[in-house]
Amino acid sequence: MGHVPQSSLADLTQEELNALDAHWRAANYLAVGQIYLLDNPLLTEPLRPEHIKPRLLGHWGTSPGLNLVYTHLNRVIKARGQDAVCVWGPGHGGPAVLANSWLEGSYSETYPDVSRDAPGMARLFRQFSFPGGVPSHVAPETPGSLHEGGELGYSLSHAYGAALDNPRLLAACVIGDGEAETGPLAASWHSNKFLDPEYDGAVLPILHLNGYKIANPTVLARLPQPELDDLLRGFGHEPLHVAGDDPARVHRAMAGAMDTALDRIALIQRTAREEGVSERPRWPLIVLRTPKGWTGPAQVDGLPVEGTWRSHQVPLGEVRDDPAHRRALEEWLRSYRPEELFDGLGRPTGQVTACVPEGARRLGASPHANGGLLLRELPVPPLERYAVGVESDRPGATRHEPTRVLGGLLAELMENTSERRDFRLVGPDETDSNRLQDIYRASGKSWQAETVATDEHLDRHGRVMEILSEHTCQGWLEGYLLTGRHGLFSSYEAFAHIVDSMVNQHIKWLRTTRALPWRRPIASLNYLLTSHVWRQDHNGFSHQDPGFVDHVLNKAPEVVRVYLPPDTNTLLSVADHALRSRDYVNVVVAGKQPCFDWLGLEEARAHCARGAGVWEWAGTEDPAREPDVVLACAGDVPTEEVLAAAWLIRRHLPDLAVRVVNVVDLARLMPEGEHPHGMPDAEYDALFTRGRPVIFAYHGYPWLIHRLTYRRAGHHELHVRGYKEIGTTTTPFDMVVRNDLDRYRLVMDVVDRVPGLAVRAAPVRQAMEDARLRHHTWIREHGTDLPEVADWTWTG
Amino acid sequence: MGHVPQSSLADLTQEELNALDAHWRAANYLAVGQIYLLDNPLLTEPLRPEHIKPRLLGHWGTSPGLNLVYTHLNRVIKARGQDAVCVWGPGHGGPAVLANSWLEGSYSETYPDVSRDAPGMARLFRQFSFPGGVPSHVAPETPGSLHEGGELGYSLSHAYGAALDNPRLLAACVIGDGEAETGPLAASWHSNKFLDPEYDGAVLPILHLNGYKIANPTVLARLPQPELDDLLRGFGHEPLHVAGDDPARVHRAMAGAMDTALDRIALIQRTAREEGVSERPRWPLIVLRTPKGWTGPAQVDGLPVEGTWRSHQVPLGEVRDDPAHRRALEEWLRSYRPEELFDGLGRPTGQVTACVPEGARRLGASPHANGGLLLRELPVPPLERYAVGVESDRPGATRHEPTRVLGGLLAELMENTSERRDFRLVGPDETDSNRLQDIYRASGKSWQAETVATDEHLDRHGRVMEILSEHTCQGWLEGYLLTGRHGLFSSYEAFAHIVDSMVNQHIKWLRTTRALPWRRPIASLNYLLTSHVWRQDHNGFSHQDPGFVDHVLNKAPEVVRVYLPPDTNTLLSVADHALRSRDYVNVVVAGKQPCFDWLGLEEARAHCARGAGVWEWAGTEDPAREPDVVLACAGDVPTEEVLAAAWLIRRHLPDLAVRVVNVVDLARLMPEGEHPHGMPDAEYDALFTRGRPVIFAYHGYPWLIHRLTYRRAGHHELHVRGYKEIGTTTTPFDMVVRNDLDRYRLVMDVVDRVPGLAVRAAPVRQAMEDARLRHHTWIREHGTDLPEVADWTWTG
Repeated sequence: MGHVPQSSLADLTQEELNALDAHWRAANYLAVGQIYLLDNPLLTEPLRPEHIKPRLLGHWGTSPGLNLVYTHLNRVIKARGQDAVCVWGPGHGGPAVLANSWLEGSYSETYPDVSRDAPGMARLFRQFSFPGGVPSHVAPETPGSLHEGGELGYSLSHAYGAALDNPRLLAACVIGDGEAETGPLAASWHSNKFLDPEYDGAVLPILHLNGYKIANPTVLARLPQPELDDLLRGFGHEPLHVAGDDPARVHRAMAGAMDTALDRIALIQRTAREEGVSERPRWPLIVLRTPKGWTGPAQVDGLPVEGTWRSHQVPLGEVRDDPAHRRALEEWLRSYRPEELFDGLGRPTGQVTACVPEGARRLGASPHANGGLLLRELPVPPLERYAVGVESDRPGATRHEPTRVLGGLLAELMENTSERRDFRLVGPDETDSNRLQDIYRASGKSWQAETVATDEHLDRHGRVMEILSEHTCQGWLEGYLLTGRHGLFSSYEAFAHIVDSMVNQHIKWLRTTRALPWRRPIASLNYLLTSHVWRQDHNGFSHQDPGFVDHVLNKAPEVVRVYLPPDTNTLLSVADHALRSRDYVNVVVAGKQPCFDWLGLEEARAHCARGAGVWEWAGTEDPAREPDVVLACAGDVPTEEVLAAAWLIRRHLPDLAVRVVNVVDLARLMPEGEHPHGMPDAEYDALFTRGRPVIFAYHGYPWLIHRLTYRRAGHHELHVRGYKEIGTTTTPFDMVVRNDLDRYRLVMDVVDRVPGLAVRAAPVRQAMEDARLRHHTWIREHGTDLPEVADWTWTG
Repeated sequence: MGHVPQSSLADLTQEELNALDAHWRAANYLAVGQIYLLDNPLLTEPLRPEHIKPRLLGHWGTSPGLNLVYTHLNRVIKARGQDAVCVWGPGHGGPAVLANSWLEGSYSETYPDVSRDAPGMARLFRQFSFPGGVPSHVAPETPGSLHEGGELGYSLSHAYGAALDNPRLLAACVIGDGEAETGPLAASWHSNKFLDPEYDGAVLPILHLNGYKIANPTVLARLPQPELDDLLRGFGHEPLHVAGDDPARVHRAMAGAMDTALDRIALIQRTAREEGVSERPRWPLIVLRTPKGWTGPAQVDGLPVEGTWRSHQVPLGEVRDDPAHRRALEEWLRSYRPEELFDGLGRPTGQVTACVPEGARRLGASPHANGGLLLRELPVPPLERYAVGVESDRPGATRHEPTRVLGGLLAELMENTSERRDFRLVGPDETDSNRLQDIYRASGKSWQAETVATDEHLDRHGRVMEILSEHTCQGWLEGYLLTGRHGLFSSYEAFAHIVDSMVNQHIKWLRTTRALPWRRPIASLNYLLTSHVWRQDHNGFSHQDPGFVDHVLNKAPEVVRVYLPPDTNTLLSVADHALRSRDYVNVVVAGKQPCFDWLGLEEARAHCARGAGVWEWAGTEDPAREPDVVLACAGDVPTEEVLAAAWLIRRHLPDLAVRVVNVVDLARLMPEGEHPHGMPDAEYDALFTRGRPVIFAYHGYPWLIHRLTYRRAGHHELHVRGYKEIGTTTTPFDMVVRNDLDRYRLVMDVVDRVPGLAVRAAPVRQAMEDARLRHHTWIREHGTDLPEVADWTWTG
């Protein structure tokens, strides 16, 4: 690789060089040990089959590169007294990060049974990828990690999230050349157009070109160097190259690149902070080109391994059974000269730990990587200032746009955090469209690229973040939350699916941390899903999908919460709760279009606290006996249809005893044992009855309600209406008619389901059918909704 | 924008220029008309309120740019006799593409009631975004489209998919600068490292920088020109710039850029095809920088609109009620001088249509955009050649790796299509890991970047495609299928969620085409999900997720099929069916690890055809009476556990009548009316009984089975075991134990659920508990599975 231009070599003394190399060799030794050894960790005797794990698991290929980065980050952190975290994109290289954490002592401080000596080393080795042990990837269990590297693509956006509003922090980020092929990673390069050198910290991307993925070369490693440089400059970076396979030379080059990068970052920050220069800087980036599986076996069974994809996982596969493989492993391990690295008790020598920084500066001990340690209560303003007035005897007399009202509250929250800078709103260019724009009163939109005279609300120091990449938004926010701050993601409902796989990983992370007492709770990841399935007037079918709720409800119930506030005040109450909560993923589905105000603030709070309840004023039941039918609803549009249906029944079937139930917190429907919010059967039965017909109008896919309630006594009489995947560009009311969720259909359902009503109420049913017919005729002609629907209001 | 370097101006005659401009003006006029007009399409009288649509919907901002591109593509297609399609990334600009299709006549040929005259123009206008009309986006309903532009990010990968194995095709692709911020789009730039100039066609990206998204400037439009050029060169392109707001000048520049681009493409192809040059070329790309909402109102209500985000949707909002807005609209429409563009009958003049190509060369009439027209039967080899032998009296006597066997069949399929080149295998670097590598016998992996001596199976003409971007894989395959070819996507099961949102859109596309008789059926989109939740030995929790099945089962049942073949021969049968099918999304979940061979080929075929059935040989029931219990299973691992449980029951409770049911086709469980494969109740009852306990071992989330079956008579006695989100790095058997899906737990379930067994079988239950305990002790010590489990085989 001699043809690759190198950055300048650092002027290391031989002693410094030796110490760095010792640390790197020690980490390599420990990484190999974790993959292979069950016992004999210090090779005090020749390797025997029983010293070898029966199942060889893990990823060696990326580990030596990660060890090199960790070693050199140690050096500059210590030399400069730098606060830093590192996001390890190739998280498969768990053995590397675990090795370094053990060497620096943070591992043993976190897990005292894995002590920094021979017995601890044996435990470190044995537990790795062993049943009941630790995962093979960098994971929540790994000290200093804020990123699970199992699913690739999110490292760089996580690093940016960590750096936002952390002006003294360096967020280093190792990006594997495999990961660099993913969409989310590719999009996140442009994050530097949103990083404020004044109020934010720095991100140092380290693109590690070891050349291979699982079984293929990588694209970036096989570009001519000038083309790669064009690309990285096009991403707004100044690349510094480190390449080679001679350790001493690579150490000098890496130290030189690190120094150059940190000097440049310091200069950029000084220029911005002290001289007020606002031009977007060209941030440094290190390209590290070293062989995959570097220092591992050059060949195995006659095939090249080091420097090829064959070193991706376990280079020597038959170590337990094949003496030649076992000898090769022993040679490989001894090539690191463990006797120089560990003393007789298995403790790393002073030379090995010479580069390790002190205390919380160690990468495995940074409080930023255990963000709950830094988390402060969020100063959410009193809801009273934003609640809309609803007289208790006149529900539905007014309308508001729920998200617009929420926008006012968020503006004050932004204002309240303007000094602390620990709250951000992210979204894919939809803050205005979702009617949250009042927030610009308190903070503009983060923007470091060029501006023109007609721009509005762009702000170099803004904390509203908009890029047309849901992946990048999600990654930024995750990184921000994981480092101890707060935030909200607003998105069109349908396109939340774009981050299905990302939210999976975040939920898994949160779930795992529940069992790790040393991980402090962090702020919840809050979604506001608006511009929802029923109101995609401008877009139609491609923008209609309520399934994100179904997706998250498959995940850990300890973590997942889903709310469907039916009006403005309930949205405020739900948002208040979500913003103050910890360690959850809260999904809030709420409309932006004018919506009837059903509940006053106090009623809304009480209703949201219960999560589901009877709206007595909307029903006609005699409290002394069970109702004839329950009309249930969840979601703003279904609630309006159910109330309109209840209103129609009052007029057409005044003697029918109707109960109206509204559900805000969807998990309340689940059995008590299956979700912390699950309702006891007795409570469910009291609400929904054990056998009366329940007509349930739900915001999303109807079968979700069945899957939540199939164990309930009254389930055989539960009839759910919802979105049946019939989407199109049409009017709001036509959407509900097409999906059989409209008020007329609901009344017909009541007639069909309540015993004894079929004959008596046949004329009512006919009147409802006539109304639906009227709708179809009217809309074909006028393209608008029936006046009787458009002008309808609740009158008790 | 004068500072932007321009590509050379074309040498157009004034007549040619006038004709191009007339076509462009006509398209702009028609786009505006669609957004606003209900009547008076030719402005034969002054605009009155009743001529205006009551709901103004649609996206003007991108339309003039798309119209410009369509006009100039027409010119070069006609001049060169070029076969072409265009993927319209800014698909929100539906009015533009519809306008051009109407102008060229393809619209009226497809929809004769929308004739190319005044009444047809009135219909074209009225139907747009009108209830019961056509979607506001480019959509399946749009002639010439193979891409719904509603969800952004997939245009470029679709264009590459269209160009693969289509050597004479030009796939132009307009990429909006908003879309360019998405992850999927960002990843797909590197597709040119996989495009073979010899056997593939060309992709011409046209990056349209109109500067704004919904409410923000775009990142790429706000980069300094040299930085943008670096980026595009880094992506492997040579950018050609067209910029301005003076129509005549832009026409000349655009014509010049188109000519330059097509000349270069022709040269690249000639060099590769005739001179055998194999160096990766630098493909041309056009950067088109024109104002958003160009030619629309410069200002509205005192605010700038043209050239800003305010022209994104409907620039004049109050046209029906505000006479000033209405006057402004009329001026706007008249600014295109419609009287020059349409004759007295509303037909476009000869000048307008002068640039339009003939017949199937018209973009709206290309058979490549209606791929079913070109589709050929796939020569799937006879399964007999690959089936594994299973003697009917010795099921489970052997094991095979199902995907490895399938790999052999796929190799022959590759071979059979080596001349036709209409089958591709795509995957994110997992073909080897998923054990399909036999396919390399017939075709290598597509690769145009640098190579080194140790590389294996890289092939400039290969039809196996691997890039570590699920998004790009999916986009390529969709584009390939939509243009009339066949393919298979193999992926780790968990990471299929990465394309959740993409598969949504493809399912919606297929569903919509069902109602469009002119759209011919295309090959199904086939997923092989392997390396599944139960066998993530190297990775653990982050790689464990069986929820893709749940996700797709929320979508159109006409389109979605889910198969869980329990062994090798059933996988062959399912794959054969999926590969031959049309217009479906087939999700096949199958293991790559050694799996017992339960069924011979003929049995497998019969079983797959039924989709679910009794395995008599595995049960102990007396055909004359109902069984005491049904053990049901779906998926390879659950099937093994159920058979082992049945085996244990034979030994421990020999008088218990057990029925074993295996489900391959998950939709069979659904009610008849809810899915085309849904089983009639009578059949379901005959299989599962109406009230005997059913212990169902399912591959994924257990509640999915409940959501499919809650209406069945016997549902109250259905008890499902499955993945409970308890993932970790451990042994295969420990995974099933942790999730209560193991054989011992299933036998305990039988004891607990079969009436009258609790006391009599208490010792058996205890023995099962003891076995689980033995497992826990053993694994803690050895890190492997119990020998009694690892060595278990079925013996009848």
